[in-house]
Amino acid sequence: MKKYSIGLDFGTNSVRALVVDISNGEELSNYVFNYEKGDNGVILDRNNPLVARQHPIDYLKGLEVSIIGALEQADKVKGFKRSDVIGIGIDTTGSTPLPVDEKGIPLALRKEFKNNINALAWLWKDHSSYKEAQEITELAKKKGEPYLNKCGGVYSSEWFFSKILHCLRIDSKVFNSAYSWVELADFIPAVLTGKQNPIEIKRSICAAGHKAMFNPKWGGLPSKEFLKHLDKRLAQLRDRLYEKAYTSDIKAGNLSNIYAKKFGLSEDVVVSVGAFDAHMGAVGAGIKPNTLVKIIGTSTCDMMVVPNSEKLADIPGLCGIVDGSIIPGYFGLEAGQSAVGDIFNWFTRFSSMSHEILTKKAAELKPGETGLLALDWNNGNRTVLIDAELSGLLIGQTLHTRPEEVYRTLIEATAFGARVIIDRFEEYGVKVKEIINCGGIAEKNPLLMQIYADVLNKPMKVSKSSQTCALGAAIFGAVAAGKGKGGFDKVEDAQRVICKLKDTVYKPNLRNNKIYEKIFKLYKELHDVFGTKNYKKNLYHVMKELIKIKNEAINNKK
Amino acid sequence: MKKYSIGLDFGTNSVRALVVDISNGEELSNYVFNYEKGDNGVILDRNNPLVARQHPIDYLKGLEVSIIGALEQADKVKGFKRSDVIGIGIDTTGSTPLPVDEKGIPLALRKEFKNNINALAWLWKDHSSYKEAQEITELAKKKGEPYLNKCGGVYSSEWFFSKILHCLRIDSKVFNSAYSWVELADFIPAVLTGKQNPIEIKRSICAAGHKAMFNPKWGGLPSKEFLKHLDKRLAQLRDRLYEKAYTSDIKAGNLSNIYAKKFGLSEDVVVSVGAFDAHMGAVGAGIKPNTLVKIIGTSTCDMMVVPNSEKLADIPGLCGIVDGSIIPGYFGLEAGQSAVGDIFNWFTRFSSMSHEILTKKAAELKPGETGLLALDWNNGNRTVLIDAELSGLLIGQTLHTRPEEVYRTLIEATAFGARVIIDRFEEYGVKVKEIINCGGIAEKNPLLMQIYADVLNKPMKVSKSSQTCALGAAIFGAVAAGKGKGGFDKVEDAQRVICKLKDTVYKPNLRNNKIYEKIFKLYKELHDVFGTKNYKKNLYHVMKELIKIKNEAINNKK
Repeated sequence: MKKYSIGLDFGTNSVRALVVDISNGEELSNYVFNYEKGDNGVILDRNNPLVARQHPIDYLKGLEVSIIGALEQADKVKGFKRSDVIGIGIDTTGSTPLPVDEKGIPLALRKEFKNNINALAWLWKDHSSYKEAQEITELAKKKGEPYLNKCGGVYSSEWFFSKILHCLRIDSKVFNSAYSWVELADFIPAVLTGKQNPIEIKRSICAAGHKAMFNPKWGGLPSKEFLKHLDKRLAQLRDRLYEKAYTSDIKAGNLSNIYAKKFGLSEDVVVSVGAFDAHMGAVGAGIKPNTLVKIIGTSTCDMMVVPNSEKLADIPGLCGIVDGSIIPGYFGLEAGQSAVGDIFNWFTRFSSMSHEILTKKAAELKPGETGLLALDWNNGNRTVLIDAELSGLLIGQTLHTRPEEVYRTLIEATAFGARVIIDRFEEYGVKVKEIINCGGIAEKNPLLMQIYADVLNKPMKVSKSSQTCALGAAIFGAVAAGKGKGGFDKVEDAQRVICKLKDTVYKPNLRNNKIYEKIFKLYKELHDVFGTKNYKKNLYHVMKELIKIKNEAINNKK
Repeated sequence: MKKYSIGLDFGTNSVRALVVDISNGEELSNYVFNYEKGDNGVILDRNNPLVARQHPIDYLKGLEVSIIGALEQADKVKGFKRSDVIGIGIDTTGSTPLPVDEKGIPLALRKEFKNNINALAWLWKDHSSYKEAQEITELAKKKGEPYLNKCGGVYSSEWFFSKILHCLRIDSKVFNSAYSWVELADFIPAVLTGKQNPIEIKRSICAAGHKAMFNPKWGGLPSKEFLKHLDKRLAQLRDRLYEKAYTSDIKAGNLSNIYAKKFGLSEDVVVSVGAFDAHMGAVGAGIKPNTLVKIIGTSTCDMMVVPNSEKLADIPGLCGIVDGSIIPGYFGLEAGQSAVGDIFNWFTRFSSMSHEILTKKAAELKPGETGLLALDWNNGNRTVLIDAELSGLLIGQTLHTRPEEVYRTLIEATAFGARVIIDRFEEYGVKVKEIINCGGIAEKNPLLMQIYADVLNKPMKVSKSSQTCALGAAIFGAVAAGKGKGGFDKVEDAQRVICKLKDTVYKPNLRNNKIYEKIFKLYKELHDVFGTKNYKKNLYHVMKELIKIKNEAINNKK
């Protein structure tokens, strides 16, 4: 008898529910609820462009509408019965913390905070806490604490404690009214299971480890002593946060009576502990040791796993290394590029040409032919430099340079950025033997995929599912339910049945790779001279070599 | 009684005749003939984008149509009589040499060369001879010859001997049929005076000195010995070139009988020795010691004069230092930027916005606010690096960077490039106490002028005439005619009467200048690290400082 699991994926602008046949990974149905508040779900502050918030009402409405919508569609599929749904898994953006009261109810739902944006959820891309992030980084360094060893030595303005500390500083009313703060990834399972008491919520190791400096090695969250140096009240808050964190194969609870009724599902349905979208996306794409999963969209997440029985160094420049954040029993390694699709989108705003036309024309060019080189830092650099204050660079333009040449160069720049990440993994012994891509760009842009194959000199595979995050969430729902209920004992077992690849594989062209090797050398020099503190270099050869490479490319074309 | 002089200005796409009242500089009339051959007068080679030629027929037709047109308009002006025209001066593009026969007739007019582009005039911007230019540069260095000391040590593909040597190499039929080669600036006076015998043509010191390594110090043109190392036939050609060269206050001859009739002018009209457009433009703009004249168009020419009684070092990086090339009795100093307006034109091709809209939006920005910095090398660097193989660079772009910000940054980049030239003059003791601008951009772009004033921290004045080249040519016509005929004895005397400034002066804003000083420091670092061979530098601070300057600019705006 077939069993089903639901993956619930909370993105930046919408939430999606996916009903999956866990006997073969078939996606029965798929329903998207677009957030209704603010600008596509993102609530902005006219006076501060760094602010980005979300309203919990969108989350609460979204989970109902999307699950009901997906189930109604699934009902039309032959053989599907709601009673055969055994699990629900949840992934969300993060770090997206919400201030909540003693019962776990978001402060934003209270009348008194109706117009207060600080009582809302602080969306991952809210950067208003950049000063607090610096403060935390400096304090950890000064105190010699190991808290940042697993996230490249730099705490981000996007993360949990930066945001809470900033709230404390700018809005003590909200801070004081908050009994606790809950990540969206923890809030949704709590709501679905009706177990919202903040002290009892099973918090996600993925969120805790990657964003809140949580590590059992040093006793969980950073010490009260440490937090006191930031603010006494932050130290006090620690008691109202959490001591433990869980992998997503763990059951958060059963579906509450209320939601079971609303959805027409059994109260036996197991809701698993939540995690971040990219991490569950990696699972949905089929991550395993030595397989790099790249989620390529506006930015990228580059994920790997290493069995936690192996010795693993603190790889400098990585966004995070957390035991169990992707698959239980494995270190989850997270890297990423701060902008990929965003850079191409940015560039099309300069041009009267669309993506489609630019891509078509760029595809006619040969590697090296543009004579151009760019750094992909228009949104800073997440890995390996971890520096938000880096910016873009374009070099080699002449009076003949055409828009499609710049467009291609920007694609190549992101490929070189991807290469730096892979090199870093491998330098520290994490060999990349396979690359599986997913995300919108991986699906829709064969030119980019081929350039990546040529630059990285590795075949680029693409996940069959276009909803790997929701698919990964569904996998965790089925694993949390367990084999006894028709699910799985282990994530790896579920992946073997559910995760698939598209037939098309982009294979590296060796001749192109040779040319890109030359250009990458130049990229790396620019990367180091602009991105690191002590690398001195004369760069007289850069423009010359680009011209030489260009001339060779043009001659070879003839 | 009023006297008149005609300035004849041969540009890249057209020839213009200007009738000037030399008692006050008033421009009576002005007629333009657009060349009819090729692409706006430029004949291209589909197989070689470096080729750019012109047909002598355009020159011959152009001089007649433009002079007749201008005179017919002048006839309508009260008080004008053709019999009061005393001189004609000529300026042209250059180096634009033509192969001619024993009688000075262009080979291109012969039937046998009808379809041979190598028999045409080799337009200044023809770069097909780049290999020969390198060869000449290397030979001069190897032999320790001083020939390149006055032009920054590098011979250009645009110049006389590169072009002739290339013709010798690729088309011996044309080379062998050519009795001599004549610069366009020498050809036109020869035609007008009917003295076309190549051996007798009074060649321009401006063309000879700036483009053909001519200098009386080393016996005129480079030695036969030197030329023999390039090719025996080039050494033989030297005998059929010239031994002497003349300043443009010298009379080339009287207007020939034929042209006097055609134009309805007297045979007493004096035709002066020709010179290049920029040099005569500087005279028309009012150049004098310590006054920099900037001709700002698609590229710039930056000209100064220093009395030849003074000691003047060989200023490295200048395009040329030639005694008498601008005003007799003064060293003419020529510098320039390879692209200014061309860079803005190039950028608008990226954008759906026009120059007008980009300018309007860019004008609303404050210095530093873009967070961007560019190098103005999209067409290489003429001064002070003399390197055609340099290219553009843009740094600091984020996902929020808008087209008008890049547009403003490109303007600023050309201002920084202008600053480097002024600094070089001053380092070698040539103080810049005044700047007079002319050319299309100087007239039409107040934003650019203000940015230049702020970056250079000097008032930017603009020549009153919008035809300073033709006006300068008319001045030389009047000087060659001499005071006895109602003209002038000296160029300086003529300038005092004829050259005027517009009322608008762009004054530097000290606050803006302070900001630009900071950005210029960064520009200079990029300039040196990408443009010179031995300057090593870590550039980690560049992106950071741009962000800091940007934040300050935005805060100051509030």
